Amino acid sequence: MSEYRSSRFAGIDVYVPGEQPRDRKYLKLNTNESPYPPSPAVLEAVREASRGLNLYCDPTALTLRRAAAEVYGVEPEWVLPVNGSDEILNFAFMAFCDRDIPAAFPDISYSFYPVLAGLHGVRAVEVPLRPGFIIDYRDYLGLNCTIVIANPNAPTGTALELSDIEAIAASNPKNVVVIDEAYVDFGAKSAISLTKRYKNLLVTRTFSKSHSLAGGRLGFGIADPGLIADLTAIKDCTNPYNVNAMTQAAGTAAFRDNEYYMENCRAVADARDYAAGALRDLGFEVTPSKANFLFARHPSVPGGELYKLLRERGILVRHFSSPAIADYNRISVGTMEQMKSLTGRVEEILASL
Amino acid sequence: MSEYRSSRFAGIDVYVPGEQPRDRKYLKLNTNESPYPPSPAVLEAVREASRGLNLYCDPTALTLRRAAAEVYGVEPEWVLPVNGSDEILNFAFMAFCDRDIPAAFPDISYSFYPVLAGLHGVRAVEVPLRPGFIIDYRDYLGLNCTIVIANPNAPTGTALELSDIEAIAASNPKNVVVIDEAYVDFGAKSAISLTKRYKNLLVTRTFSKSHSLAGGRLGFGIADPGLIADLTAIKDCTNPYNVNAMTQAAGTAAFRDNEYYMENCRAVADARDYAAGALRDLGFEVTPSKANFLFARHPSVPGGELYKLLRERGILVRHFSSPAIADYNRISVGTMEQMKSLTGRVEEILASL
Repeated sequence: MSEYRSSRFAGIDVYVPGEQPRDRKYLKLNTNESPYPPSPAVLEAVREASRGLNLYCDPTALTLRRAAAEVYGVEPEWVLPVNGSDEILNFAFMAFCDRDIPAAFPDISYSFYPVLAGLHGVRAVEVPLRPGFIIDYRDYLGLNCTIVIANPNAPTGTALELSDIEAIAASNPKNVVVIDEAYVDFGAKSAISLTKRYKNLLVTRTFSKSHSLAGGRLGFGIADPGLIADLTAIKDCTNPYNVNAMTQAAGTAAFRDNEYYMENCRAVADARDYAAGALRDLGFEVTPSKANFLFARHPSVPGGELYKLLRERGILVRHFSSPAIADYNRISVGTMEQMKSLTGRVEEILASL
Repeated sequence: MSEYRSSRFAGIDVYVPGEQPRDRKYLKLNTNESPYPPSPAVLEAVREASRGLNLYCDPTALTLRRAAAEVYGVEPEWVLPVNGSDEILNFAFMAFCDRDIPAAFPDISYSFYPVLAGLHGVRAVEVPLRPGFIIDYRDYLGLNCTIVIANPNAPTGTALELSDIEAIAASNPKNVVVIDEAYVDFGAKSAISLTKRYKNLLVTRTFSKSHSLAGGRLGFGIADPGLIADLTAIKDCTNPYNVNAMTQAAGTAAFRDNEYYMENCRAVADARDYAAGALRDLGFEVTPSKANFLFARHPSVPGGELYKLLRERGILVRHFSSPAIADYNRISVGTMEQMKSLTGRVEEILASL
């Protein structure tokens, strides 16, 4: 930190992304990417867009918003495309939290939420999960906070019912409820339909997991046009052309190819359910996951140790050192073949102990 | 504005980008884009990168930083790539301004600066230009503010000498001085070399003007690693993967093709000097410009009127309605041929009055 940094940011905790080591070729099961490449139409759309990069992209991303609206069953003015869903979360913390409006979120969830609260000087109300890493909707009723819940939750994979989300939105009419649906396409139910009844409900999406665009950076906010106008004002004041022309084109093409991506999501869900069963057979406790990752611990290998042993064998998983979850690893789900590699290596490790 | 928006943002002024009308084909001389397409190596780099978009991009953008460092004559840890230079300006206002540290900038300059000050609740000290739209460095000595100066300035095109910038940096050792070099490649002198002597000096760059990547969104901060670390902390807390894989690849390839882009800049500078002369011959007063635009007024046609008459004839220029500059238009410089179209139409308009 330099002597010039504003005292507001003296002690901020910085978000640490999953590691991207380049010392050897790894089977990457650590950042919840899709194992499938973008569809040919996406590659073609990018190629076409790249020719005109000397001109600015559309700051309103209208074509992309129209394609999104069609798939999400809303109107274009209900959608704000962003440079990855981290950006819409940042905008939401800016727009809807302040000294008087704290942010409430589960104590075990996406580690970016407390980072955003810290950055913006917003009080964080961390709501403890119930045993089994369960989010109980009753813990979020009438909180007088901006509420942020990942559904399915990360790194645990557990999902809420739509009726739970509805109860939370209905009981907090004066506050915004953000449902972060980064992983929803792998088996949970989307709250987008509820945005039509709850103008305080903001659903966020990313194309990093389900739509093979982690490297393209594309996310969305979907909400009543009132909230979208607030978020768009923040966008226009910080980075008016936030989504570049190639990504706008890629996203539009991906929406038009939505069935390809939904099929990939079903294949990932199958591989997940296979791997969950295989890990349980090997003695693991595995949280019921509706996401593209598994959250698992073994009674005889500490989480950090298993992470290390897998890394030595060329497989990267994500280990979090915070005490409540240090026994676990989060394992991204790839193809069935990749999951068989994983469980094979795990079996070797267990046999060698 | 919804009832949920934080009161901090109740009255913010939102930045308004240059218009992008689609009702007909225009000669676009309104947003200072390059008239030249990206180089073939950039297109190929994008194509290659698009195949792997299912994986996250490198959040540290190391390859791109190395390419930038080579061209800018610094080390990679002196460079932070961003999603367009608006993003680095936003980070700088966050990191280096607050309630106690106002932001000072010329009263006629890039209209995004006061927007950022308003957004972040930072007091804006608007320093009047001297007659002839001149930035006098003496007005910026010992200000006790974070100082932001576009060099060349926009929309006027006038440039400072390096010795002026050095005097400003030297006389404000406790504050950050931001030199926004969006337009520097068209003929002004870069302050990057001064960053080695002044650890409070931040130079910002964009590839939107000189490097034919307006639609790709790529900018840079170049400074002592102390300032870069502060800005990177803000980046990692708001959007860790801010520059997507395609743009990282495009930027790296563009740096390697730097001579192609510098040649384009020289061609634009020639077209600018031709057009400035032609407009003066037609009776215009034209500010001496070192940028890829001209700032001009005619004694017998109000700025708004000329803007309208050109628009009717298929040419878009940028008119600002604020009283101090309402007589003027900012005219982006394209190819020599485009400048001849412009001056031809202007001549017709003047003849018809």
